[in-house]
Amino acid sequence: MTQTEDALHYIQHEQHELSLLGGIGALLGWDQMTYMPTQAITERADQMALLSRHAHERLINDTFYHHIHHLNQPTILPTLTDTDQYIATRLKQDVDKARKIPPSFTEKLSKTTALAYQAWDHARTHNTYQEFAPHLQKILDLEHEYCDLARLPGPLYNTLLDDYEEGMTTQTLTNEFHTLRTQLTTLLNAITNTDRYHTQQPLTDTITLTHQQALSTQLLTLLTMPSDQTRLDVSTHPFTTTLGDHDVRITTNYERDGPLFAFYSTIHETGHALYELGLPHQGPYKDTVIDDAPSLGLHESQSRFWENMIARNQHFWTYFLPIFQHTTHHYTTTTLDQWYHDINQVHPSLIRIEADELTYCLHVILRFELELALIDEKLTVQELPDAWNQKMHDLLGITPTTDTDGVLQDMHWSGGDFGYFPTYAIGSIYAAQLYTAIQHDHPDLQTNLITGHLTPILTWLRHHIHQYGRLYNADDIIKRACGKGLDSHTYVNYLKNKYYDLYDI
Amino acid sequence: MTQTEDALHYIQHEQHELSLLGGIGALLGWDQMTYMPTQAITERADQMALLSRHAHERLINDTFYHHIHHLNQPTILPTLTDTDQYIATRLKQDVDKARKIPPSFTEKLSKTTALAYQAWDHARTHNTYQEFAPHLQKILDLEHEYCDLARLPGPLYNTLLDDYEEGMTTQTLTNEFHTLRTQLTTLLNAITNTDRYHTQQPLTDTITLTHQQALSTQLLTLLTMPSDQTRLDVSTHPFTTTLGDHDVRITTNYERDGPLFAFYSTIHETGHALYELGLPHQGPYKDTVIDDAPSLGLHESQSRFWENMIARNQHFWTYFLPIFQHTTHHYTTTTLDQWYHDINQVHPSLIRIEADELTYCLHVILRFELELALIDEKLTVQELPDAWNQKMHDLLGITPTTDTDGVLQDMHWSGGDFGYFPTYAIGSIYAAQLYTAIQHDHPDLQTNLITGHLTPILTWLRHHIHQYGRLYNADDIIKRACGKGLDSHTYVNYLKNKYYDLYDI
Repeated sequence: MTQTEDALHYIQHEQHELSLLGGIGALLGWDQMTYMPTQAITERADQMALLSRHAHERLINDTFYHHIHHLNQPTILPTLTDTDQYIATRLKQDVDKARKIPPSFTEKLSKTTALAYQAWDHARTHNTYQEFAPHLQKILDLEHEYCDLARLPGPLYNTLLDDYEEGMTTQTLTNEFHTLRTQLTTLLNAITNTDRYHTQQPLTDTITLTHQQALSTQLLTLLTMPSDQTRLDVSTHPFTTTLGDHDVRITTNYERDGPLFAFYSTIHETGHALYELGLPHQGPYKDTVIDDAPSLGLHESQSRFWENMIARNQHFWTYFLPIFQHTTHHYTTTTLDQWYHDINQVHPSLIRIEADELTYCLHVILRFELELALIDEKLTVQELPDAWNQKMHDLLGITPTTDTDGVLQDMHWSGGDFGYFPTYAIGSIYAAQLYTAIQHDHPDLQTNLITGHLTPILTWLRHHIHQYGRLYNADDIIKRACGKGLDSHTYVNYLKNKYYDLYDI
Repeated sequence: MTQTEDALHYIQHEQHELSLLGGIGALLGWDQMTYMPTQAITERADQMALLSRHAHERLINDTFYHHIHHLNQPTILPTLTDTDQYIATRLKQDVDKARKIPPSFTEKLSKTTALAYQAWDHARTHNTYQEFAPHLQKILDLEHEYCDLARLPGPLYNTLLDDYEEGMTTQTLTNEFHTLRTQLTTLLNAITNTDRYHTQQPLTDTITLTHQQALSTQLLTLLTMPSDQTRLDVSTHPFTTTLGDHDVRITTNYERDGPLFAFYSTIHETGHALYELGLPHQGPYKDTVIDDAPSLGLHESQSRFWENMIARNQHFWTYFLPIFQHTTHHYTTTTLDQWYHDINQVHPSLIRIEADELTYCLHVILRFELELALIDEKLTVQELPDAWNQKMHDLLGITPTTDTDGVLQDMHWSGGDFGYFPTYAIGSIYAAQLYTAIQHDHPDLQTNLITGHLTPILTWLRHHIHQYGRLYNADDIIKRACGKGLDSHTYVNYLKNKYYDLYDI
């Protein structure tokens, strides 16, 4: 075997085993959130730490590194097949990045966030921000240390963002979110001034557990989730996790926040799951670094697409409302028109995860602006709660009366996840771009929705998004599918079309 | 740090991580048997193989080995604490043994048994022993190769037995099983000649799933299974598995073999689980090689003790029959006396896992005698089916009409588990010895059973069995608890007492 053949063989094998280790880690996490006895928590944390340390050691292993760098030499790389060139290049980026972060830093961050999470949890319960503040400061210091280690060009925040949304820049987000912020607040203002807004009533009829479960089963069938490769279980916070190419699991929660929480969370997670199942698990990219999603934003575009563009769509409900009524034995006298309004009510609220489709991105933009200011040291940890409340007032017109309902509501910062929040808004924007592109490619989309024929939609997503895996950056995949990268205008147009009609503006 | 301190520190850490890896492997297995989507099977096998290879590499790692051998030097060992001496000695035995088996052999065995299992499964379904025969021959060849590698003194079979029942010898088993065989066939003959035997009727009233589940929940509470450290789920074959000191899971099956299958399998597995929970997880042996069961036979003694000595006991049912009737809404007019007879019926049958308490060990002895003959090359793979049928006739007075109901019924040989079967009978014998010893130590045992007060029994087992872990061999632990090692006579006396009364002999 030549050195190059040897290297190709080695990296193929190593990527496969890293992907197996990833699946094992996913099982440990899934079990913890679903079925694990409560007393097992400490040992489970040790098991997860041990496994992720082992996986990391293999990722940054010198032999692996040398094989990858051999393949990336200017004299070698062009001699490889296109496939191998893509794999070798991508892998080099990942491994080079991972090797910049010493295990001692990862351990320090992990210990700091473990304590910070506890402090956050306690502070949120007792509305005592000052208890969390010193932990947040430590995390910010570590974020700066991380930026020094992994430093990308441009603003510091680029480095953090890149871990979740590779290739995306702070500048692009600042521009797009500026447009979005202005347009959304204007649209929200128009809505809150309508008569319909002032007379709308929230849905309050609860649906029994059994009926909700029956509904979930119907949804999975309708969205063609393969029952021999997936599961639906219950957890406090709904999530999707991938244990293997043929083992993708989602969860829901039947006891939270209104009668449709489980319905919409099941669809949302199904969107994530269908994406995972559609990644290039067959062919030359199987078990390679390409066989994965390129960004959290693109992942979120899949969940939000099914949740909002499909399952909050009037045509979808033309088909599904009778089924819904028959299955749940509730809302049986509601008309399609009334139902469509009911499930699309806009109502500015304090909590992000309870936000409606329209106001959701304002919650995200708020966090993005605060993160940026914190990282750039234009805002201090002490000033943060007031800054939060001021922005809530500016963006949504309401002000939290407690930090529990304000700055302490999300766990992300306690986990050191700076740079993560924007991906929620990116996903929403991409979803609207995808919806616009599908409408263009499928003039009969409306008929498909009315007849409950969703396969053409999934096929389109498989073809334009899923099959590429990480072959390109998320924004490049969107550009190929929709003609443009991240584009708030398309999203705003989609929202205007929808809400002008809903609120007779 | 001195070299000895360094070694002690190293082996402590390594044992802890090996135990964490064991827990991860257990989760992979548990999930496969309970919730895993069917299509995930191939990747799951890869995940399990990867993890067990990694654990094995760490077990036979040179640095680990050198630290262990340093501690076992004649000049060092006596300077250690008693605890550390026990650990170092045990660990040396385990690691020395593991290092005798090259990974290439383990891989070969694993591939051979994977194919053999498939062939067995197909052969059993289609009653085609000849399909399985060449695979069995390959496995027997590998068993011989294994004996060459791990060779213990005495008969070849000692080496195989030792993996499941450390310290037990073929000679002891041959003697004890000879007694047992003679006495059991005599007793069985006496029973089948009684009037009661010829008039007894099997239990046929099925119990609904919901009632069976309610019964299982009551059992877990009665047997004091801690709900924050355990789970009960459903799988095809009931089993117990340990994911951590505070995470022991059992399964049952509500759809098999008669109305009491789930009831007795839940108790059986609870016996295993209570043992696992009672191992020395606190104190100096936590996470060490001592914090484990010394043998499968001793483990089986715990499950069979609760299943047979307690849950088939007349005094237990004095307490539990009203609860059973109230919970299941079945058998509500059956008297205690009738019920006690009903659940203790003897009925020679072809299938081991459906056997009653009395005939069960005859099934095991049959397999032991055949295994011994195969390993000693006194019996060929071609002669095996006829030998099986002949022995069934000699021991149980019945003859299978198909190999599916005969030699092909158990999967063990397809997995290369030669030496495993005897542990089922060892467990039954030990269980009777424990029952006799508890009766002696607790003259009020009968009152405890009649009042459903089972804690004193568990406390006795914790004190005499569980707390020792692997500090001694199984037979030595039994000797300390009961005054004698493996003793078929005690078991036979227990059976005679019980069945003479039941069948008016």
